Amino acid sequence: MQILLNDIIKDNKVHTKKGELADYIPELTKANPNALGICVYDLENNVYLAGDFNTKFTIQSVSKVIILTCALMDKGREIVFSKVGTEPSADPFNSIIKLETRHSHKPLNPFINAGAIVCTSLVNGNNANKKFRRVLDMIRIMADNPNIDINYHVFQSEKLTGNTNRAIAYYLKGANIIEEDVEDVLDAYFKLCSIEATVEDVAKMAAVIGNKGISPWSNEEIVPPNVCKVLMAIMMTCGLYNASGEFAVNVGFPAKSGVGGCIMSVVPNKMGIAVIGPALDDNGNSVAGLKVLESLSQKLELSMF
Amino acid sequence: MQILLNDIIKDNKVHTKKGELADYIPELTKANPNALGICVYDLENNVYLAGDFNTKFTIQSVSKVIILTCALMDKGREIVFSKVGTEPSADPFNSIIKLETRHSHKPLNPFINAGAIVCTSLVNGNNANKKFRRVLDMIRIMADNPNIDINYHVFQSEKLTGNTNRAIAYYLKGANIIEEDVEDVLDAYFKLCSIEATVEDVAKMAAVIGNKGISPWSNEEIVPPNVCKVLMAIMMTCGLYNASGEFAVNVGFPAKSGVGGCIMSVVPNKMGIAVIGPALDDNGNSVAGLKVLESLSQKLELSMF
Amino acid sequence: MQILLNDIIKDNKVHTKKGELADYIPELTKANPNALGICVYDLENNVYLAGDFNTKFTIQSVSKVIILTCALMDKGREIVFSKVGTEPSADPFNSIIKLETRHSHKPLNPFINAGAIVCTSLVNGNNANKKFRRVLDMIRIMADNPNIDINYHVFQSEKLTGNTNRAIAYYLKGANIIEEDVEDVLDAYFKLCSIEATVEDVAKMAAVIGNKGISPWSNEEIVPPNVCKVLMAIMMTCGLYNASGEFAVNVGFPAKSGVGGCIMSVVPNKMGIAVIGPALDDNGNSVAGLKVLESLSQKLELSMF
Amino acid sequence: MQILLNDIIKDNKVHTKKGELADYIPELTKANPNALGICVYDLENNVYLAGDFNTKFTIQSVSKVIILTCALMDKGREIVFSKVGTEPSADPFNSIIKLETRHSHKPLNPFINAGAIVCTSLVNGNNANKKFRRVLDMIRIMADNPNIDINYHVFQSEKLTGNTNRAIAYYLKGANIIEEDVEDVLDAYFKLCSIEATVEDVAKMAAVIGNKGISPWSNEEIVPPNVCKVLMAIMMTCGLYNASGEFAVNVGFPAKSGVGGCIMSVVPNKMGIAVIGPALDDNGNSVAGLKVLESLSQKLELSMF
Repeated sequence: MQILLNDIIKDNKVHTKKGELADYIPELTKANPNALGICVYDLENNVYLAGDFNTKFTIQSVSKVIILTCALMDKGREIVFSKVGTEPSADPFNSIIKLETRHSHKPLNPFINAGAIVCTSLVNGNNANKKFRRVLDMIRIMADNPNIDINYHVFQSEKLTGNTNRAIAYYLKGANIIEEDVEDVLDAYFKLCSIEATVEDVAKMAAVIGNKGISPWSNEEIVPPNVCKVLMAIMMTCGLYNASGEFAVNVGFPAKSGVGGCIMSVVPNKMGIAVIGPALDDNGNSVAGLKVLESLSQKLELSMF
Repeated sequence: MQILLNDIIKDNKVHTKKGELADYIPELTKANPNALGICVYDLENNVYLAGDFNTKFTIQSVSKVIILTCALMDKGREIVFSKVGTEPSADPFNSIIKLETRHSHKPLNPFINAGAIVCTSLVNGNNANKKFRRVLDMIRIMADNPNIDINYHVFQSEKLTGNTNRAIAYYLKGANIIEEDVEDVLDAYFKLCSIEATVEDVAKMAAVIGNKGISPWSNEEIVPPNVCKVLMAIMMTCGLYNASGEFAVNVGFPAKSGVGGCIMSVVPNKMGIAVIGPALDDNGNSVAGLKVLESLSQKLELSMF
Repeated sequence: MQILLNDIIKDNKVHTKKGELADYIPELTKANPNALGICVYDLENNVYLAGDFNTKFTIQSVSKVIILTCALMDKGREIVFSKVGTEPSADPFNSIIKLETRHSHKPLNPFINAGAIVCTSLVNGNNANKKFRRVLDMIRIMADNPNIDINYHVFQSEKLTGNTNRAIAYYLKGANIIEEDVEDVLDAYFKLCSIEATVEDVAKMAAVIGNKGISPWSNEEIVPPNVCKVLMAIMMTCGLYNASGEFAVNVGFPAKSGVGGCIMSVVPNKMGIAVIGPALDDNGNSVAGLKVLESLSQKLELSMF
Repeated sequence: MQILLNDIIKDNKVHTKKGELADYIPELTKANPNALGICVYDLENNVYLAGDFNTKFTIQSVSKVIILTCALMDKGREIVFSKVGTEPSADPFNSIIKLETRHSHKPLNPFINAGAIVCTSLVNGNNANKKFRRVLDMIRIMADNPNIDINYHVFQSEKLTGNTNRAIAYYLKGANIIEEDVEDVLDAYFKLCSIEATVEDVAKMAAVIGNKGISPWSNEEIVPPNVCKVLMAIMMTCGLYNASGEFAVNVGFPAKSGVGGCIMSVVPNKMGIAVIGPALDDNGNSVAGLKVLESLSQKLELSMF
């Protein structure tokens, strides 16, 4: 496995040149576009690391998986899916159009910004800080790492430049889908996008999801198995922005990407995988990260199809 | 003329039963849905009043005409139209869709909410209060009435329930079309929508516009003639929400309606007209007000076509 | 007047370089992009010609005005406007989107392709040829020129490449808005777009409309005055594709443009004007033609506002 | 298994009352809305039948799976996916909007009507009949039933009322995505939607796909394994119209539904399943069919997540 990972990283390094760093918030342009790292964490607690596995990155939209986890645990499936759908979207992740044109004004799914903002409003905690702590604590537990925290520069940058998200949140407030204070919800959401981690942290979170919610290292149930099923199903259909279908075809297991360049992947009952590669394609997914996962899926026959 | 107006009001009173009061802000539901009043102010300073001409109402979107007037006077045509278009829209007045789908993100015209919010940001004054005063002073001058002021209950109601407008404003901020502080701009905008007036006030403002910007009562130029041309052209193509084309066909002169039930109309080189009738049709226009204007246009052959 | 026109043509000739020939049908690319001609036909039967007034062109969307004329005369306002709206559109002239999203599926107005195709279906005549003859005859009468006919090369080219229009027509058939045979309606529509004329022909048609339907040369009523009012109102709000509002602001009278490079304009109670300039801007309007009309409107103070 | 299926059919029969027959083509309203049948065909060639398994139905959109199969086998992945995407859509199956708004005009995926029409154009055969035969032959082989044929009444009905599909096809022709004759392609497409089958036929086709393309009864490779992977991935993300995400969450394996009331399902490496229940929900999926599959998935733990 270790040799395979080393080879795959080496072979796909060239693809890091083909993408661009996210530039919608200034802080993200400071990342190293050529970094490429991977962690595989299997359910027997073997950890495999290759490439730039020490690179720290903000998890960005990968946090949407854990926000959804907490919303489902705190409010239950019925309430959550009364306010956000489970359907893939063909529009950009920050689009407002479907909010306006759909009769219910419900965001299509929890992995577009509108849906993640709604899920943040549903997480337990009656102010920004409590909501943030609720999700951060879950991340620390799922990654088995109490030192995970936010990058304040990125958070400030998100907050300053987050007007499209602010527009989305006020629209949802106007449509009575968000009941809590908008600025509180946004503050928590921006903080959660700014959480800093490594591929090992993210691979361990993925391993928990792929192990029906039981941590492989302590055998404790961290997340209810039914919640894990929902997470994997939505990752499969909506996890990679407008390339979710292509990823299902080419790679074939649940995943969630973020504009920080991380892709979290779950191979059910087998392993959690995380790759980091900050150079993105037009869809906002790590260019080289996608290639690495495609190679790995083919070599180890990991596709579920 | 007086007899004609009395007859038209009497004949069209029945149409007040066919509409509904605006209910998107609670305060507007307190209006009398059966009120129907008119004022004609001609360029020889004759004033004709009929029906419920004493009814006070908030001018709502009629303020967009004076906001545009001030923006054009303060910043000039080039700057204003670099940030807002002049094209009619077929979408609802509070739609965000076209902001997202059009390459430039520019609001289509100054009479949809997005466009009026941009124009408010362009009015002179570096805070909410100064912007508000700038436009209020112009309204007082154009109506020759220093007592015009805002209805604070309506203003509070607008502010509390204005989340869709807040969403629009933050979207425009995110797209760099609004440069000023969003909450300042919105505060001024909500106040301007809440200005209270009578049909006589509004008819006099319209008379100024129809007289190339010169007040008929003092013969002073209040608004530059070129600005008046722009106002009338945009009122003709965009003044009645999604019934602007129908109004051009059936009535045939420039006008601007508001959800308070007022329609301001200009018959170029002849007169200003204002009607009030708070019961609205599905497009947000005064049901009976439209009928009154249609009758008047036919009887006096006022259509420009 | 003659000197004025000569000067305006000369001064604006340079703008012909700034546009591009329509290329959506191959035949249109054979036009001379630098041609620029004008005809003014006033209500005292004075004809003024300047520039390349001999240039022949296909009238393209200018035919939509006469198709609407015939539909209104043959079926009446109520039936026509039950199947097509009167509202301006902010979408491209060949867009299908609003057909799908609006509850009624009615085309927004008679001057987008969908609306003109519906109007063609409403013109008297139970087959393609009869419908075509009905409108052609009206054009010949309104232009006082029995020799006007179609350009068969353009017609063949339109027919071969008209799949987007075919899509629109079948969509309308599926929505029960077109009742007649789709291929019949399209055949008539494509022929009518391919009618060849000169600026003098078009200026005379415009003069009839501006004279309340009475031909200035014979004093006969050719078009009912109420129909002319409707035509002018819709030309004012919808005549120049997505630049209708800008034209109202800058020029200020009813007009209809076509991708052949012609703009037909009506100055009510004064004159008909036609310009030809095949180089188009991004909206599909003659670049130099717009400039010529703007100059003429300013010099002679023709704006209705 | 047999007892389980009998119970599930019995328990879910009540749900057949909650839907409506498809009425967009008159022939479909003649089905029995209360029918409910199932076939499970496992990879050891065991066949389990329960409920109204003898009901014949037209496969409608289920044919899209086999049309895509043939297109991929005849033209290869690269050509097919240069003309149709792999992304889920949030719009109705017969929507034109995204064709117009997306830069490439490519249909989003092979399972919306636009995408299936494109795939039909890519199937081998230079006329309607040859294309139809190509896919029909594949269906007969995959179902191991040489007697499968079309229902001519349904075909005639589809053809007569298929104007929205005709609009879609001409739009795609105009955008150069369909190169073949539109009426030929549509004729083949309408015929393929009208193919009549039973749940046993469809379950066997699904079993082939779930067995990597090898027929369990003859051990021959009928479909290349790579094609099967693509089929399953796209069924997972796009198979149930606008309820694909919900199905992934609640049921969790690849499927494709049709408005005839059939749902074809594949449990990879385990079995093919087909249910028939003509009463549909608002998304166009069999109401009771969905419930049956949900029960079966839970009882046998068939979800892939």
